[in-house]
Amino acid sequence: MPTHYIAVDWGTSRLRAFLCEAKGDGSFELLARSAGLGVSKSPMGFEETLLHAISAWEADYGKLPVLMAGQIGSSIGWKETPYLSCPISPGEVAKSSLVFECQGYSISIVPGLSCRLENDNYDCMRGEELQILGWMQLDSAHKKGRHLLCLPGTHTKWVLVEDGKIKLFKTALTGELFDLIANHSVLIQSQGPDFNLAAFEQDAFDKGAAFTLNSEVGSFMHGLFSVRSKQLFGELSKEQATSYLSGLLIGSDIRAALHATEWSLSSVDQVTIIGAPHLSRSFARVLASEGIRSKISKVTNTTLLGFNAIYHYSAQQLKEIS
Amino acid sequence: MPTHYIAVDWGTSRLRAFLCEAKGDGSFELLARSAGLGVSKSPMGFEETLLHAISAWEADYGKLPVLMAGQIGSSIGWKETPYLSCPISPGEVAKSSLVFECQGYSISIVPGLSCRLENDNYDCMRGEELQILGWMQLDSAHKKGRHLLCLPGTHTKWVLVEDGKIKLFKTALTGELFDLIANHSVLIQSQGPDFNLAAFEQDAFDKGAAFTLNSEVGSFMHGLFSVRSKQLFGELSKEQATSYLSGLLIGSDIRAALHATEWSLSSVDQVTIIGAPHLSRSFARVLASEGIRSKISKVTNTTLLGFNAIYHYSAQQLKEIS
Repeated sequence: MPTHYIAVDWGTSRLRAFLCEAKGDGSFELLARSAGLGVSKSPMGFEETLLHAISAWEADYGKLPVLMAGQIGSSIGWKETPYLSCPISPGEVAKSSLVFECQGYSISIVPGLSCRLENDNYDCMRGEELQILGWMQLDSAHKKGRHLLCLPGTHTKWVLVEDGKIKLFKTALTGELFDLIANHSVLIQSQGPDFNLAAFEQDAFDKGAAFTLNSEVGSFMHGLFSVRSKQLFGELSKEQATSYLSGLLIGSDIRAALHATEWSLSSVDQVTIIGAPHLSRSFARVLASEGIRSKISKVTNTTLLGFNAIYHYSAQQLKEIS
Repeated sequence: MPTHYIAVDWGTSRLRAFLCEAKGDGSFELLARSAGLGVSKSPMGFEETLLHAISAWEADYGKLPVLMAGQIGSSIGWKETPYLSCPISPGEVAKSSLVFECQGYSISIVPGLSCRLENDNYDCMRGEELQILGWMQLDSAHKKGRHLLCLPGTHTKWVLVEDGKIKLFKTALTGELFDLIANHSVLIQSQGPDFNLAAFEQDAFDKGAAFTLNSEVGSFMHGLFSVRSKQLFGELSKEQATSYLSGLLIGSDIRAALHATEWSLSSVDQVTIIGAPHLSRSFARVLASEGIRSKISKVTNTTLLGFNAIYHYSAQQLKEIS
């Protein structure tokens, strides 16, 4: 088995490919990266999109093993992989990959995960499991005891890891609701060409988060209109309104996590946050306001550690077979 | 003063004009109706849009007084009227109308209302106040004691009426969130041309409402994803998913009303619901599931009763002046 491989994080809106070298000590080195179109945006087909992203590496390395994860394994992807049920260990995930040949490349799609919550609802993820597997490699302590991870993004995933297994997780639409409300609702209006949606105002964010966390039950539905009324009555500028909305939504997400029956936030030593830097900092800040410690892990590095773990498990399996 | 007048409910997306005859006993008769474009959709200007809607009545009735309400009095409307602060009585609303002449017509714009909630947030409305004023005319008992009104729509307005005054109200974005999520989120997808978003499935609706009402605090943010996961795992069809979403959102709205600090739902004899028939029935059903009685009032009739009250108060004022 070669010591080099290609990891492909292939989501709905983009493909990111990474050329990696596996080290003997279980670590890896990132040698190069490349990008392409997401699953919902590949007019030329999946095979061509993938080869376009990785073929430059063939001259130096030959046809390396390709490990893929994300929506590429969904019903709108290249090959559909069934969700694997939690609780599940990293080794079980690795050995469930769907392997096929394409133009001389051996391609593995890592399946997504599903779980059933205490309220009987199913939940599911595709792609984020690599971040969890990666985080579990970071420290041997992560494979013992109970840990809560928060993966903010378009959909926040709150993940409970217990004794080296992914036990269950919950999805919140926090990021998607932010985009919908900030861009398409009456709450934030009349944005001229100079309007900067990304400008962040910390005070307004804090006000939104505090409002949610200190309100009566149901404050989300009856409090959301404050994004508009605070502008109408001169308490927020348009720019501040988006930060206030962000605080309100992240506050609601964390408030839900505080009341989740599946875990007790107060009994967790700290929450690990894996996400984009600005989002991670916002979640950490609101958690801190509730007296909860957190630690931020870098998302790309953690994802690649997950692919690396899958690669090592697969190599191990090949060794056991031969 | 003529016994006939024209009532114009002019909102963001449409104009509705009504030719009415005021009766001596304080009631009215609706003689004709007409329609036009909303405030955000009037390319030909407000004056022309209004005249286009009402000029057909001039030949028989002359230039009747025109009473208008809604977004036409907002910052994006014809003439901006400042919000009137609650608590406020119907007479105080009537005498605060902005009156101007246009092409020989005497036009009055009834201003919107604002209030300050216990959490210090402002709230506001434009147009719905006519429904409240109308309901207050329906029965002399409505002008005594404490009453809770629920006006479902794009934005639900929960209104507390006390001793003949509109005391305060709270806005929930229930209808707008439904439209955003049903049409633009990942929760409800891949709708072919045959898909009927309006098809209503009572069981799925009930399931959504019950889920919200019986969940832990914060269930909205962590429960919304069930709209998608229940489809992925075969518990809801695409058609059922929209009804389930509706139940989940209306359940969240009512849950918030159950926990509002401004009133106590359990101590209210019944809730009056004024809205479109299907929405009103849905709200009544969820309230009943929580043991709360409700009574439905027809929205157009109630709105016109409100305009009629404004007309009578104005006539009274003219009489007092002369």
